[in-house]
Amino acid sequence: MDEYYMNLAIEEAKKAATIGEVPIGAIIVHKNEVIARGYNLRETTQNATTHAELLAIQEACAKIGSWRLEETTLYVTLEPCPMCAGAILQSRIPRVVYGARDLKAGCVDSLYTLLNDNRFNHVCEVTEGVLAETCGNLLTTFFRELRMKKKNQKRQEL
Amino acid sequence: MDEYYMNLAIEEAKKAATIGEVPIGAIIVHKNEVIARGYNLRETTQNATTHAELLAIQEACAKIGSWRLEETTLYVTLEPCPMCAGAILQSRIPRVVYGARDLKAGCVDSLYTLLNDNRFNHVCEVTEGVLAETCGNLLTTFFRELRMKKKNQKRQEL
Repeated sequence: MDEYYMNLAIEEAKKAATIGEVPIGAIIVHKNEVIARGYNLRETTQNATTHAELLAIQEACAKIGSWRLEETTLYVTLEPCPMCAGAILQSRIPRVVYGARDLKAGCVDSLYTLLNDNRFNHVCEVTEGVLAETCGNLLTTFFRELRMKKKNQKRQEL
Repeated sequence: MDEYYMNLAIEEAKKAATIGEVPIGAIIVHKNEVIARGYNLRETTQNATTHAELLAIQEACAKIGSWRLEETTLYVTLEPCPMCAGAILQSRIPRVVYGARDLKAGCVDSLYTLLNDNRFNHVCEVTEGVLAETCGNLLTTFFRELRMKKKNQKRQEL
């Protein structure tokens, strides 16, 4: 079931890639129903907070009508950053499933384990590595193509 | 000058208190101009992400037209939580000034020092303790009054 939902998060990530955004996608499931979706929109919106997870959390709060997202699972293609890990704690999401690790900024396993610190008033169950290769490949392909585009642009400018 | 701007953040926090929200306020200054204001709206909006800092950051991005909040200072009455500290990193705010420490969830000095970790792609200058007593008193008074209200309610119910 985790793979099924992660595939939906991957679909969101692909939407980001088609508009030139770093491909990261998220969905939130509440009692077996997908109640929110989000993909990274930082460049489009020029708003630093429009990460996939944050957008999905905001939509889920609106759907449920509560800042407490009880009985939900958040699926996201990349390990959450400090802002999104913090938003997961703030919204009391009980379970997070992510795909690829983010060794540079991940705050669930890589740099910090913010979702598993019992000094906070919420601790979150985490499953990592679901369709990790597919999730990671989306990112490496995106950045490879971006580098190629920039190279070609430079060549045309010479 | 820090005290002058912190007083404006305190004014925001007071607005929160008047509508029953935990009194935390923030402002963002860009080249000596206040470009964004925010106060905690979690209960009113039933949205877990509507902390003072996040609202101010979103407004500042819209004002400047960029997710990079260069040459800004964020003033906030309470030490930021992980979500807001993360949003400060994401928006590349160069300087943060806060009032009271948050020993339970603060991620700038108390539980973590997220704004001063050079593994992230941004490090932030921090000044703490500006009008700390006033900022802290706002919170202790708010929670004391809340407890009294609840006690009185219980008495009336008996």
